[in-house]
Amino acid sequence: MILVTNDDGADARGLKALIEVVRSLGIVYVVVPEESQSGMSHAISVKKPIRVRYRAEVSGNDYYCYTVTGTPVDCVKLALNKLLPRKPDLIVSGINHGSNASVNLIYSGTMAAAIEGAVNSIRSIGISLSDYNPDADFSAAAVVSEKIIKQVLANGYQPDLCLNVNIPAVTGDRLKGVRVCRQTKGYWSEEFEESVDEEGHRVYFLTGTYNNMESGARDTDEWALQNNYVAVVPVEIDHTRYDDVDILKDLNFDKI
Amino acid sequence: MILVTNDDGADARGLKALIEVVRSLGIVYVVVPEESQSGMSHAISVKKPIRVRYRAEVSGNDYYCYTVTGTPVDCVKLALNKLLPRKPDLIVSGINHGSNASVNLIYSGTMAAAIEGAVNSIRSIGISLSDYNPDADFSAAAVVSEKIIKQVLANGYQPDLCLNVNIPAVTGDRLKGVRVCRQTKGYWSEEFEESVDEEGHRVYFLTGTYNNMESGARDTDEWALQNNYVAVVPVEIDHTRYDDVDILKDLNFDKI
Repeated sequence: MILVTNDDGADARGLKALIEVVRSLGIVYVVVPEESQSGMSHAISVKKPIRVRYRAEVSGNDYYCYTVTGTPVDCVKLALNKLLPRKPDLIVSGINHGSNASVNLIYSGTMAAAIEGAVNSIRSIGISLSDYNPDADFSAAAVVSEKIIKQVLANGYQPDLCLNVNIPAVTGDRLKGVRVCRQTKGYWSEEFEESVDEEGHRVYFLTGTYNNMESGARDTDEWALQNNYVAVVPVEIDHTRYDDVDILKDLNFDKI
Repeated sequence: MILVTNDDGADARGLKALIEVVRSLGIVYVVVPEESQSGMSHAISVKKPIRVRYRAEVSGNDYYCYTVTGTPVDCVKLALNKLLPRKPDLIVSGINHGSNASVNLIYSGTMAAAIEGAVNSIRSIGISLSDYNPDADFSAAAVVSEKIIKQVLANGYQPDLCLNVNIPAVTGDRLKGVRVCRQTKGYWSEEFEESVDEEGHRVYFLTGTYNNMESGARDTDEWALQNNYVAVVPVEIDHTRYDDVDILKDLNFDKI
């Protein structure tokens, strides 16, 4: 049994491509946000009602589709607790329209859904296509996704395995292979666009530029993407910075 | 210069306690969500207008207050790019009403604001009081916060230091000290409450129970809190699980 989710909502082409990949691999449940939840990270609906709609018109013999008026992580929580008959063997999230490499990981609803799976000891894969073209073609990314999903299903990785898979926007011979790598250190320098709303108030729209703090580092996900490799980064749920634990202990931080 | 933010909004008592702590330590900018953004994690407002309001009525000679119609991370981004005259020396987020220890870290807007600071190479501290009583008293937590903030300001920690500080709900001699520790492995088993909305549709409200997967482990933040210690966990921005990088490479994951 495979749970499919995303952050781009039920109508996203990347979702449809991913459903086509997994429907031959087992019983499939699709539980996705009703509307786009891009940039929602690991947000949950606190004290807000969540509606679930069974989409009979899109469900078939081999998969079931639900839409949820909440975040990607709400979708996973509802799927695991209310909608699926048992714990799934795998959660796949995506295919996201745009890269979730480097620091994008922490803003990503696609990756948060996968991470929520791993928190619940379910192998999870977040998949993104590094292509910002509105007409992006997901077919090559679907082929890559199928290979990676089959690899994970066939092998006995630990139950909290979580992969951040980013696929470059190239096809055929230009795609060089898969690299297991690490998250690139980077940040966004924001340039808010200023505008005036209908009531005459000044408003800001978030935009910005990505800054790679270690361009040239060949073991990073950004390097892989820039060099036409699929980047696979295993994701850690424990966010402790262990080097700092030792440093802070040495500095007698606890003598407060 | 110190930036203060939170996820509980401008009227939160924990915020007021924190402002009182830092206003003697330098010029203070308060940039907070207009409404509660609890559980918003690292969400950002994508393609949504963000309004900023300068709160002349609460600003004074020693601090400036802005409210933002966005998430905690929006607040930090706007503060750094539009509202502050320069990069602050420190970002403090909180004092959150409720624990952000263990896996709560990944759902927390309070901690996301601090992490966003560290992503931008600014020392940041998220502070939470492990007390769910609506009338929780923040005064003892404020005393602890002051000591930790002064320690961080006085010492030359690396610029991306990020601390997750959780304070137990005890006072006086019952508070045993500070422990530098690691994030406890745990998860929430959810119990959605079912209800019916005004239109007659079934809706779900998220609730649940926290499960500690390593209770008894004395180096964890949950152990510290349960034993009346302040838990200080340094937070990592790089989410790569390095052990898995090696395992996946050994398994020729890249031979796809």
